[in-house]
Amino acid sequence: MSASRAAIAESTATLLATMRAARPLVHNIANYVSMDVAANALLAIGASPAMVHAREEVAEFVGLSGALVINIGTLSMPWVEAMIIAAEAATRHGKPWVLDPVGAGATSLRNEAVKSLLLHRPSIIRGNASEIMAVAGGAGVAPKGVDSANTTQEALAFAVSLAEHEHCIVIATGAIDIITDGRRVVKLGNGSPMMAKVTALGCALSAVTGAFAAITTDKFDAAVAAVAVYGIAGEIAAEPAKGPGSYRVAFLDELEAIGAKDIERHLKIVDEIS
Amino acid sequence: MSASRAAIAESTATLLATMRAARPLVHNIANYVSMDVAANALLAIGASPAMVHAREEVAEFVGLSGALVINIGTLSMPWVEAMIIAAEAATRHGKPWVLDPVGAGATSLRNEAVKSLLLHRPSIIRGNASEIMAVAGGAGVAPKGVDSANTTQEALAFAVSLAEHEHCIVIATGAIDIITDGRRVVKLGNGSPMMAKVTALGCALSAVTGAFAAITTDKFDAAVAAVAVYGIAGEIAAEPAKGPGSYRVAFLDELEAIGAKDIERHLKIVDEIS
Amino acid sequence: MSASRAAIAESTATLLATMRAARPLVHNIANYVSMDVAANALLAIGASPAMVHAREEVAEFVGLSGALVINIGTLSMPWVEAMIIAAEAATRHGKPWVLDPVGAGATSLRNEAVKSLLLHRPSIIRGNASEIMAVAGGAGVAPKGVDSANTTQEALAFAVSLAEHEHCIVIATGAIDIITDGRRVVKLGNGSPMMAKVTALGCALSAVTGAFAAITTDKFDAAVAAVAVYGIAGEIAAEPAKGPGSYRVAFLDELEAIGAKDIERHLKIVDEIS
Repeated sequence: MSASRAAIAESTATLLATMRAARPLVHNIANYVSMDVAANALLAIGASPAMVHAREEVAEFVGLSGALVINIGTLSMPWVEAMIIAAEAATRHGKPWVLDPVGAGATSLRNEAVKSLLLHRPSIIRGNASEIMAVAGGAGVAPKGVDSANTTQEALAFAVSLAEHEHCIVIATGAIDIITDGRRVVKLGNGSPMMAKVTALGCALSAVTGAFAAITTDKFDAAVAAVAVYGIAGEIAAEPAKGPGSYRVAFLDELEAIGAKDIERHLKIVDEIS
Repeated sequence: MSASRAAIAESTATLLATMRAARPLVHNIANYVSMDVAANALLAIGASPAMVHAREEVAEFVGLSGALVINIGTLSMPWVEAMIIAAEAATRHGKPWVLDPVGAGATSLRNEAVKSLLLHRPSIIRGNASEIMAVAGGAGVAPKGVDSANTTQEALAFAVSLAEHEHCIVIATGAIDIITDGRRVVKLGNGSPMMAKVTALGCALSAVTGAFAAITTDKFDAAVAAVAVYGIAGEIAAEPAKGPGSYRVAFLDELEAIGAKDIERHLKIVDEIS
Repeated sequence: MSASRAAIAESTATLLATMRAARPLVHNIANYVSMDVAANALLAIGASPAMVHAREEVAEFVGLSGALVINIGTLSMPWVEAMIIAAEAATRHGKPWVLDPVGAGATSLRNEAVKSLLLHRPSIIRGNASEIMAVAGGAGVAPKGVDSANTTQEALAFAVSLAEHEHCIVIATGAIDIITDGRRVVKLGNGSPMMAKVTALGCALSAVTGAFAAITTDKFDAAVAAVAVYGIAGEIAAEPAKGPGSYRVAFLDELEAIGAKDIERHLKIVDEIS
């Protein structure tokens, strides 16, 4: 079942406006590399970021937040413990939380961390194709470090079954972005190859997804809106950019500038190919 | 009692030139989010930044530094321990140190950390309005994550009494920036709303305040100069900026470019309103 | 013995093309300040960065990587342990690894960490003049925090003897960049004073050096190529830049754009002066 382009554009524009008005506090347990750009992306798009990771305060802070985003990019044992405490608190408080399983499949520590975190029921999982395949339990799936070795088309079946199995939304991003709740699938074709030339833009999307998840009970629509807005901003930003340095600058500018008209004009729903 | 605009402009320009000539080494125990932009702000304005946080070396490093800046943004217990060791060493060595109580009031861990650090007598405390109110012991003051829920006008009495009680300089930043030693109050009206759209620019101001504190015994003048230079650079940078991405770039450019003429032209002293 | 300018330009261009085609995974145990810019520099130039530091997974991750880069900028004991495990794994796996001894000479912790790491035989050591002198055991050498208090000309003899003693390549960067294997010395004169106004560009060069070390057995040529490409990009980027903010942006753009023609046109070999 697929929604029409017009319906998705309208829902996305509405959710963006709602999110900006609410300015939700997004609690990130982020990786070190992504903290700067994720916080800046959240501010640019209109949310309020906080990075808080101490075991001693994460549960308390989850209570203050609109959503929690857990990113396992630069793991260590004290952080894994804090992530589990925070995820548990989010579930207990009924707060949505987003899991970004960076580098899942690459090492045992990552696989174990993901397994432990899944027990606390993320609302949304966002990763690249290889990461989603690894989390879904794809045998022999090994990402190349933190870059994807697979296309999202290859990850589609894994994403759907993961969403079904975990009763959550799954986002697999790449040249084509896939959002699924295990039943419905939306494929978006916005974005730019430049996005892969700037570090942590995937992580920052997970953070932005948290901002949308904070303001609606419909996590599927929230996920679609986050990916759509992000991809469209990424597409528009590519025009003035001369390289990855100026692209990052233009992208943050565009996250602030993007509005309903840009969404209406640029949203690209990809027709089922397979 | 308030100094004249001309006197503040002159003192600020002199201190900026002195600081650039001295190129003080500023030792930061910074939060992860702010490290990049704080180090870049210090370099841009003409100081020499270092980020050093290990319990095993902070005291030794304080001895090499012109000033210490402690920022509690991304706390954890090992960092709290190192902060206390460093603050103690700074006081023992007679080195000025700046406390940035990020998110004070939000969690017990933060409140406890601030309480422990205050025992080691910071020279300057810099925070947003809600943070200053929380540190001053305002009942029921709860910042929204790391963003302020209050104006500096509301924080004024708290800032003055905190400065008086702790025998230090207090800076509360916002649309209007307040600097007080508990007796004198200077209110500055420079800056730009764009500053709140880039992460960690408050933290980076605390770092820059450390650079000014390193080169004069008059910590009040140092604090006023730091806030004035920073706000004016922030104001000038808003002109070419198209959004938060390009604003951050322009701001760092401007921190390097700013000089006596800009200060003379742009310095805005706010008349007492209340 | 010194190679001709033409030979160095050709070798550098070839290695750059080879590296881009191979897109090596570079495993960084980086300092917090440098993570963002180092990852972005690696992406811009065409490599694949990963930042992984947990004791529990570094050895496993080294096995997946083309090269390891260890940067001691923001040390703490758990990180030192992980660095030693990773360095040991790199040597065991025959993977090249680069040591960036940030702030060597400044504290005992740093000196001890460097001593322990040298036991695991880095392929390349890259630092500023003061750091190289401190690692080489220069008595009374004390860097000013993380900035160099010496010129590379002063560090030359230390660099050569360090390379000889450790059987590795040594890079000392500054106004003139020196690369030596203890026998040969190449001095490059590219770059821009702006590079010292942006934080962690030295750290990011160490990361980029890892990318070149990953794709050839000749670590001397790899080191020369990395320094040459980086310096030339730094030189070209200075033209459009208005200050340190826009310089960083232009530099990342240029790391992506630089090609054989730029190398041929701009490569500056410095004649022996001393």
